[in-house]
Parts: sequence; C-alpha cells; structure tokens
Amino acid sequence: MAKIPVGILGATGAVGQKFILQLADHPWFEIRELAASQRSSGKRYQEAANWIQSRPMPESVRDMVVKECRPDLQCEIAFSGLDSSVAGEIEETFAQEGFWVFSNAKNHRMDPDVPLLITELNPEHLEIIPRQQQNRGWKGAIITNPNCSAIVLALSIGPLHQSFELERVHVVTFQAISGAGYPGVPSIDILGNVVPFIPGEEDKIETESQKILGRVAENSFEPADFIVSSHANRVPVEEGHLECVSLSLKRKATVEEVIGCWEEFRGPKQVQGLPSAPAQPVVVVPEENRPQPRRDVEKYDGMSALVGRVRECSLFDLKFVVLGHNTIRGAAGASILNAELVVETGLIKR
Amino acid sequence: MAKIPVGILGATGAVGQKFILQLADHPWFEIRELAASQRSSGKRYQEAANWIQSRPMPESVRDMVVKECRPDLQCEIAFSGLDSSVAGEIEETFAQEGFWVFSNAKNHRMDPDVPLLITELNPEHLEIIPRQQQNRGWKGAIITNPNCSAIVLALSIGPLHQSFELERVHVVTFQAISGAGYPGVPSIDILGNVVPFIPGEEDKIETESQKILGRVAENSFEPADFIVSSHANRVPVEEGHLECVSLSLKRKATVEEVIGCWEEFRGPKQVQGLPSAPAQPVVVVPEENRPQPRRDVEKYDGMSALVGRVRECSLFDLKFVVLGHNTIRGAAGASILNAELVVETGLIKR
Amino acid sequence: MAKIPVGILGATGAVGQKFILQLADHPWFEIRELAASQRSSGKRYQEAANWIQSRPMPESVRDMVVKECRPDLQCEIAFSGLDSSVAGEIEETFAQEGFWVFSNAKNHRMDPDVPLLITELNPEHLEIIPRQQQNRGWKGAIITNPNCSAIVLALSIGPLHQSFELERVHVVTFQAISGAGYPGVPSIDILGNVVPFIPGEEDKIETESQKILGRVAENSFEPADFIVSSHANRVPVEEGHLECVSLSLKRKATVEEVIGCWEEFRGPKQVQGLPSAPAQPVVVVPEENRPQPRRDVEKYDGMSALVGRVRECSLFDLKFVVLGHNTIRGAAGASILNAELVVETGLIKR
Amino acid sequence: MAKIPVGILGATGAVGQKFILQLADHPWFEIRELAASQRSSGKRYQEAANWIQSRPMPESVRDMVVKECRPDLQCEIAFSGLDSSVAGEIEETFAQEGFWVFSNAKNHRMDPDVPLLITELNPEHLEIIPRQQQNRGWKGAIITNPNCSAIVLALSIGPLHQSFELERVHVVTFQAISGAGYPGVPSIDILGNVVPFIPGEEDKIETESQKILGRVAENSFEPADFIVSSHANRVPVEEGHLECVSLSLKRKATVEEVIGCWEEFRGPKQVQGLPSAPAQPVVVVPEENRPQPRRDVEKYDGMSALVGRVRECSLFDLKFVVLGHNTIRGAAGASILNAELVVETGLIKR
Repeated sequence: MAKIPVGILGATGAVGQKFILQLADHPWFEIRELAASQRSSGKRYQEAANWIQSRPMPESVRDMVVKECRPDLQCEIAFSGLDSSVAGEIEETFAQEGFWVFSNAKNHRMDPDVPLLITELNPEHLEIIPRQQQNRGWKGAIITNPNCSAIVLALSIGPLHQSFELERVHVVTFQAISGAGYPGVPSIDILGNVVPFIPGEEDKIETESQKILGRVAENSFEPADFIVSSHANRVPVEEGHLECVSLSLKRKATVEEVIGCWEEFRGPKQVQGLPSAPAQPVVVVPEENRPQPRRDVEKYDGMSALVGRVRECSLFDLKFVVLGHNTIRGAAGASILNAELVVETGLIKR
Repeated sequence: MAKIPVGILGATGAVGQKFILQLADHPWFEIRELAASQRSSGKRYQEAANWIQSRPMPESVRDMVVKECRPDLQCEIAFSGLDSSVAGEIEETFAQEGFWVFSNAKNHRMDPDVPLLITELNPEHLEIIPRQQQNRGWKGAIITNPNCSAIVLALSIGPLHQSFELERVHVVTFQAISGAGYPGVPSIDILGNVVPFIPGEEDKIETESQKILGRVAENSFEPADFIVSSHANRVPVEEGHLECVSLSLKRKATVEEVIGCWEEFRGPKQVQGLPSAPAQPVVVVPEENRPQPRRDVEKYDGMSALVGRVRECSLFDLKFVVLGHNTIRGAAGASILNAELVVETGLIKR
Repeated sequence: MAKIPVGILGATGAVGQKFILQLADHPWFEIRELAASQRSSGKRYQEAANWIQSRPMPESVRDMVVKECRPDLQCEIAFSGLDSSVAGEIEETFAQEGFWVFSNAKNHRMDPDVPLLITELNPEHLEIIPRQQQNRGWKGAIITNPNCSAIVLALSIGPLHQSFELERVHVVTFQAISGAGYPGVPSIDILGNVVPFIPGEEDKIETESQKILGRVAENSFEPADFIVSSHANRVPVEEGHLECVSLSLKRKATVEEVIGCWEEFRGPKQVQGLPSAPAQPVVVVPEENRPQPRRDVEKYDGMSALVGRVRECSLFDLKFVVLGHNTIRGAAGASILNAELVVETGLIKR
Repeated sequence: MAKIPVGILGATGAVGQKFILQLADHPWFEIRELAASQRSSGKRYQEAANWIQSRPMPESVRDMVVKECRPDLQCEIAFSGLDSSVAGEIEETFAQEGFWVFSNAKNHRMDPDVPLLITELNPEHLEIIPRQQQNRGWKGAIITNPNCSAIVLALSIGPLHQSFELERVHVVTFQAISGAGYPGVPSIDILGNVVPFIPGEEDKIETESQKILGRVAENSFEPADFIVSSHANRVPVEEGHLECVSLSLKRKATVEEVIGCWEEFRGPKQVQGLPSAPAQPVVVVPEENRPQPRRDVEKYDGMSALVGRVRECSLFDLKFVVLGHNTIRGAAGASILNAELVVETGLIKR
C-alpha cells in the first residue's frame, strides 16, 4: 500500500528535526514536503537546517527543497513544529484549506473546539472535529498535542483518574533544556544551575491537564474537576522531563493498586496497534533511584512514561516520580501518534 | 582580647575544609587543632588534605600537624565535620571529656536531649544542655545543626511558623552535589542528569523540621505539630540547595503578609550581633526567575535563605522557592554560628 | 553452529558492564561466566552489580551467579575488565591455565611478548603469541588492547603511518569521565570544570602509540620511531574522547591525500568481515564544527574513529580533531574485536 | 581628587555588565554614562539590562538612564563592549569626536595604527597613537585589547619572549561559554559536550599574539617572528579559558629558568602601581592537577595568568597549561587597565 504523503511545517527547527527523524522510516507516512520560514525557502534542506540531532539527517530529506508555509503543499497531513509566534495564523490557514494539522504549538490548545489529544487517554475528544469544522468553516482541522510537561504528567495521572478519580495533584518539574527549542536556553543561564521559572509553563500544566482528562460536551470540553498546582523548573539535562508528583484520589487506593493500575493500563483497543503506540504507556521501574533522565529517557522509543518511587505521602495519598521524553512523547512522537489515530478512525482516508 | 582556641574534627574532609575557610579570619575563634583519621595524623595539613575548595588554603593551617580524633586537643570547642560512620562515638567521647562539640553529623540530631539548633529560630533549645550533661554524665556537650536541606527549609518556614503557625508543608528539593561530601556523587551518575533519590534525606527533612520548630519540654523536645512531606533530588549543581515549597498556615495570611513577615524577621536580639549572623536571615528576591543556585548562592556570605516566586497555591495557601548555601549555612557556617551563640550566652567562658 | 562460551572478569565494574552489553547479542560468543571480586561472588548478577548503563541489563545475565576470578570458569576466552590493581596476577593465572585473556588493564600492555592489538592496524603482532607461551610456560595467552586515548589516536594516525610514515605527533586530549571507571571522577571535581591532568595517561599515550605501530621483531616489538607528545585532560563529557592532533609526515602529503587515505583505509582483509569490525575504521566528517562527543560518539556502533577539521598547520604538516568511543572502541568493543580476530585466525578453535 | 567620568558602550551586554562591576568601586573612574542600542535607550538600566552576573547590579547604575551610542556622552573615556557587528563604525565616530575608546571588539585590533595593548607587555605600543590621530584626523583614539584567548596566551608566553625569544608556539584552547557573550552558546550545543570549533578564533590567536609581542615600527607594527598554531575549542565551563601550550625558544632555557622568568616578571615600573594591575602577572601554581577553571579562575581578582604543569616536551622545548579569566583579564579588566595606563602616561588628563 502506498504511504500517505505528509508535510512538516517549521521543518528546520528543533521540533521539525525530531519530526523528520520520527517519520524517516514510518510505515504509513512519507515526508513529501518540508516548509519553513522565508529565510529557508528555496534552499535544500541540508543547507537550510542547522542540524542539531545526534542521529544523522536522513538521506531522504537532504536534497528536498524547503518551501514556504503556504497551503499549497502536496499532502493532506501537516505536522507543525512552528513557533507559537507564527503558528496561530499559519495553522488556521492550512486547516481552512483542507489540511489536517497536527500541532505542537500552544496557540490553539485551549480552544473550545480543538482536541488536546493523547491517544491512550482521550481519543473520544476527536468527536469535536465536526463541530470545529462547522464553527470555522474549515475543510481540514487542527488537532493539538499537549505541552511537553503536561503530557508527561497526564500520561501518569490519566490512568489513575480513569480508575480512581483524581482529587488533587501537586507537581514540581525538572525540565530538560531541549524543551525550549533552539537556540533556546543560553548555556550561561543553565550550566551548573537550576532556573526555577519557565514563562507560562505552570499555567499550561494546570489547565491542559484538566482539559485532557475532561469530557467532550455539546460544543466544547468540560474540564476534569481535580485541582492541579505546579512549580516548573529548568535543569541542565539534555532530554527528558522529570516530575515529582503528589496526588490524592477520590476513591482510595493502595500503592499496590496504583502500581497495578499503571502496569495494566493499555489504552483503548484501536490505539494499541498503532505504529507509534508504546506497548505499555506507563512503565513502573523498580529501582529506588530511577527513573533518571540521562539514563532512562531513550527507553521504549521515548513513547512511554516511566514511573518510579511510588510511595505513600503524609499530605496526599501518594507520591511518585515520572519521566517522559519531552521532544518525542512530548512533541513530535505525540503528534505522529495522533495522526495515526486519525487515519485509523477513517477521518483521513488512506 | 585573646581568641578562643578551637579544634576541627574531620579537618581534611569537605566539611572540615569549609570550617577552615570560615574560621580563618574569625574575630572570636582561632584554629588551634586539626584532627582527622589515623591515615592523616602526623602529617602537615597541606600534605594530609586533598584541598578541593576554590578559595586557597589559609596560610595559617598549611603547616599545622594533623592529630588523631582523641580528646586531648588543646581547646574547649570542637567543630565536627566527621562522617556519620565514625561521628557517633568520637563526638560522645569528646563531650564526656569536657569538649563542646558542634556537630554536622546526623548521629545525635534526633536524640531527645541534644539541641538541633538554628540560632535565629530556637536558641531556647539550649536549655536542654544541663539535662544532656546530667543524663550522660558529661562535662561538655553536643550541639547539632540540621541536615543541609532541613536547615534551608526551616529558615524559610520558621518565621512563618512563629507568626502564623504551620499546618502542612510540601517540599521538593534540588540538591547540590557538594551536599554529598567528597568524593561524594560520582560524576557519571549526575552529569546532565537528575537523581530522584537521596538515601535517608526525606526522613531527615521531615523529622528535623518538626524538632527544630518544636518546644523544649521537661526532658526532651516536643515536635511542632505540622506535617511535612518531601521529595529529595540531586541535581548537577555545585553549591546551593534549591527547594520548591508549598504550605498551608493555621492563621491565614496573604502573600504580602508572608513576604512582610520574612523581610522583618531578624531572630532574637542576642543572635543579631553575632559575628556569623546574617543581617537578614531570610531575603526575598524580586526577580521572577530567581533565586538560582549558581548565581545567588554566594550572596550574604552564604548565611541567609533566599526566597523567591512567592505566590498563591491552589492546593496550599502559598508556594515559593527557597535557596540556601548547603555547605555554609547548611554545615560549617551553621555550626560556627551555633558556637558563637553558646559563647554569647556564657555557657562557654571566653 | 554453537556459540563459543566466554567469561567476563570484573563483570560488575564499568568495563564489565560494557562487555555484557556488547556481548549480549554477539553472533559468535555467548556469555557463560561472570566473575568478580569476592564481595560479589555467589550473588546473582542483578544483585551484585550497580548497573550504571543507559541500556537495560540484558535478561540473560540477570540471574547468572557471579563467581570469583579463579581459573575454573567453563570457557576458553576470558574478557578482562579488571582494575589494574588486581589484573596483573589474575590475568597471568588465567593464561597459565589455558585461557585466552583479552585484557583492558594496563599491566601487561607494554610487556615485550604481549600484543597491544588493534585488529585493523597490527594483526601481525599476534605472531608473538608462541613466543609469549614459550617464555612463560603458558597454555593460554594474554592479548591487550590499548589505553582508551591511545587507541583513538592510533586509529587516526595508523593509516597515515602506513601510507606516509609519521615523524612527529602532538596530541591534546579532552577525555570523558567514563574513562575513569566507576565511581571514577567525583562530580565536584569536574562539573563545569576541566582537570588538566590524568595520572599516567600521557606516558601511556606516548609509549603505546609507538608499540602499536611498531614491528614484530625476533622476541619482542620494535617501536615505531616517530615522536609523540601529549597533554591529557578530563572534561565534563559522559562518553567519547576528543583529541586535537597535529602531526608531521616523513613523506609529504596534501590534506586531500590524507583525507583520501583515511576514507580508503579498511584494514586487512581478514579483519573486514569480523562481526564487530566497523565498515570504515576512520570516518571523515565534513561539518566544520564536528565531531562532537555528545552528538557523534554513538555513531557507527562506537567502533570507528571520527575525524574532522583536517587542515594545514603552520608548525606541523597538518592538524585535525578525532573522536572515539572510549568505553566501546577504547575498551570492551576493542577486546571483543581482538577475540574475533584470534578466532578467525584459528588460534582459538571454534 | 575628583574621579574621571567614563562611559560604557554596549552597557547592557555581557561585557558591558562586567565593565559595570569592575568600575563600580574604581578609585580613578566613575561611571557617568551608559549607552546601548536603540531598543534600550531611554530606559533605566535595571529595566534595560537582563542582568546575568552573580554579583548584584551596583546600586549606582540601577536608575541611570541608558542612552544611545552617540558621541554626545559626558565623558572623555568610553569603554566599549559593543558587538563587532556594530562596533566598527560607532567606535570610529567616538574617536573622531575626541573620545578615548577602549575596545573589546575585534574590528580594529589588527589595524596597523591601533595598539593591541597588554600593559605589562607592550606599553610602548601607545607610541602609535599620534600616528593614528594624524592618519585618521581624530581628536580621540581607539585602543584595543586582545581576544580573550590571545591575551591569556600572550600573558604566559610574553615574558618568555622577552627573556628567551619565542620560536614556535602550539596552543589548544578549552574556552568557557562566557567568551561567547549573551545569549551566546545555546545550552543544547554544549551541555556534556565539546565543540571543537570557534569561528575566527584560531586566526585571532595566531595573528594577535604576533602583533602584541611585535615592535612599533615607523607607521605600524612589526609582528614578532615566531610561529603560532592553534586549535580552539568550546567546553562546558562558565568562566576561564584554559590552554595547553607547547613551545620552543630561540635561546634555550631549563624548566626552572622558565618558571623563574614567570615568577620574577612584573611588567614595566609605570604599570605596577596601576589600580587594576595584578601584583604578579603570571603566577605558577605547584599542584600537579591545577590550574582548573572552576576552582582557580577567580583568584588574583581574575587579572593574573595562572600557569601549571610546566614540563619538558619531546617535540618542543617545554609544555604547560595556562588559565586566564576570559571576561575580566580577557575583556573588561584588560580595557580598564589599559585606560589606567593611558591616564598614567598623561595622554588623558585627569
């Protein structure tokens, strides 16, 4: 069967490069178009991009000519790694012209008719799509994935919410520098240091978590009614957001039941077979000093959340540590998995 | 006036070296004795010590001959930077023989008749000393200072406890590698990484905080009755423990009142004039992305707690970030300040 | 065909762990025995080892019982990751009892009858083996691989020596912390720092290079007659030794000829097909700011030397940068490749 | 005596901030003017600057209003921390209008009538100033200080050149991230990494060294006739450029003679008493593993070069390691010391 052609918006940036790596050998998708800012358009990709990945640039894209981000690309699916300063308008234009846009940008995440999709947790949020298209007169659609910290949190607390209902969630993040894109965090700011503030991040973690685990209502989403409080911090780590979570449940559960819940969690049937879906969305690690970002972030293809140190808490029901790959599960990989689900549901024709 | 001779136990170790730096120009104290393990005894200090400080080794100690840790040192005050594997017994022997031992080790911190002293917060805990001497038949005494994470936390929450009474305290730490001594954390474990576990640390933070802010009772201490929950983590930072704190108070206070409480806090009169006492024990920093360990840890001679990002919390009353110098305020500097107070009170004769 | 059983000496250490990872799916070899110090012996491997690798511990070794390093292991090949403090004697005992010992330790590297083997460069050094066995009355043998800095240097300069003859070689190293084993370099010594001294390293780089590229003489090796001068430095990098090399050749060559020499270099025929042999022992990278350790060290399975920035030098003929994987090509991987060659030559029977 | 008013061009940048710190308590100079780009002009300094220093912003500049870089500042001395993209023209305009410009930018360093001044080494290069003023019709002048790597090298090799004459110099640098200004090196490029290339740096090191140690000729400078070859590298270090140097001398000298030369070197009389002049321009450190950037860079107020590991070299006469503070001795401190000398000589009237 022929592969589905896809395009990447913001293809030269940090997220764009991750899209290229994740899509290079994808069984369903084939990179047909690379688009970026005017400055890059017209150049061959290997000249336009400052390639900052460890894995080498795939042969297949080296000589592709970068185009501008205009809705005349030869594909139906557009993965967007655009910066939020430009993503809003460009993504809307693409959706209007019939593209299915899978976006990493924050611009539309909290829109009442845009899904903030984590395939394993809220695939039913796609039901809002017809409403989105009707509201906006679009032939295509925009589907977003959460902020990189929010998705790691949601993956770990989502299964518990489904089983025991969340009441209160407290999270302190240790976020990798790659989460800030490129050039991102100046080295002089973070070498041997911790920066206890990331603009806008805490609000995203708190509101996005509630939307992700909320329900589709008539015309919008009804946020889940647990409370989230967060402290977001940057640490000198290359990849992997680590989070210290404390939480209380409405239906009490022991540490063993919670661990069991995670280990058995697989997400909905239709998601389990998708090419980018992890075999086990949440993996509980047994070592007392794990997960650790540098040592564990690449495991399970970067698509699972790794949970460790699950224990009782004197202020909440329990506390634990969770690690997720912020530029794979928290960005490019999440978008691609979302697109796979949309293809699987038949919304996009193969 | 002649200076008071003092000795340093564990003088070649990381804490011992900090003691030397902090005491080199002390107005009251003069280093008379350096003691360490048998391996070092008999050597000149500059040969015995693997000096790992940025500041140079003071001239005055270079040629001093290191002795063994036996209670025949020519001094009445002994600062102990001994490792907990040997501190217990040695410190007891010294106290028995009439030394005033100011200890950084964990061994005696939670003993019911040993003060866990922070001069600005609980100087009245010294009232237990006669009981300690009576219980144990000692001519001297042991006075401990808290774990390096506990002291940073206590300095920030102590003034609030005095003004508004604490109810619940949640803390997540970002601890510097220097907190583990030398050789301490292997570089391969922490470079570009976070280790979400420090053996024994969370228990110390929780129990020590309650003791520090508790009351002296008849024969022991009555712990303060707030609840503490902690996650302790190691980060690749040289000096300075950063902590994300969320807390609730029994008597409600606004963010402004809390900030005012910190800014006005000075500790008891008798402490304010001590040579090592910071002018302001808690300093509130205004920048939204501070305090930061590498940039702020050396400020105020490393003796104040720096608080930032004070804001309301949806789960607790408020949340903030606090930074303290773990090897000065969290170790050597704290012990010295404790000794100054004991001298000031007349318990030790000048 | 049945796999050849092998044992690992020092199996719990840093190099031992790399051996396990490199051998886990080896087409010819099968880990049959794990041996370590008395402290570990009798325990299951997963309890004995403090596993510090990013890749997970292979299932196959988890429950293997660790033995002591005595020559009663059920295998003919022993890979040694022993520390030099114990390697000398243990390796000799094994060789005497008929084991083929492939050693990473420095103890026997410069012995006149022990090969310091880099398969692509000096496979003929194996001719000394009968002499070694005769000299020492051994049924087995010891074959060493070079120091991790020396092998990276030798891989890059070896092909040039074969084509143009080296005259003078100047090298300044930037060595990763993993090169010091575990626990190795204390983090407080290297975080945000450079340590411009590694005990014994410069001598190893200089003398080993000459032995590697020397000739087998009657009863020993005749060192190559070029001169090497080195500065060895430790930098806060996890894996990968980077080296700035300047050199002069006896037969002059242009930069293009030198690059051509590297790109065409394949090593001897019999080595090319070995399972661990890199397709291209020296890879020249075109980017002006590469190779870089964090980004490039894992390429080519860590078995090639990556050369970059080849240019003329005003003091020597040319200068360049070379990067090699110090714990794969510089340790475990090199030993395994050496063993493969010995099997291929028929010295060890399959 | 009244202080001399000075201005800072590029006052909000990384070098500008260092100028402010170095000038805050200067005995001769007083900051009268702060100038920066249009974006900052009109704002109070504390609002215009993103203060990235560990030491706090001096009170005296907080409320100063930042001006544009136009030659109507109320001062005669202008310290320039401007980026080279704009420094060329602005500095010329200032010099034309009568300002004495002390510049850190590369633009005019190699001009034949502009001194590249290191006070201890080539104060006589100021003799070119009348020629510069005549050539260009300027009332003021431009005096530059060398590239931050070149100055560290020159300080160490300059005394040897004066005593023994240099023949060949080989240098490999380990350069701190602060050398690239702010935001400078992206953290994702350098964390746990080495970047073996810094654009333009090697050429600066090589040509500037020769100019610095050259002679004033009729209308220009005659470069010293030794040969320099360099490899420039970036390492994850905050402050302090470390350099591995090998060199040969025309008049042979033993290691002891070379060490003696450094220890006795004081620079010319007229320089020794200047406020920013280090007591000893080159300090030889005895420890075998020092100097180290993180531990030693702040010593001697960051104004001396620290030399260590002096030893014989098999390819050159000797080799050693040198460390200098790249943003103090390599930038702001060097400029200020240059200005002090010019004031001392009477070229600028007090």
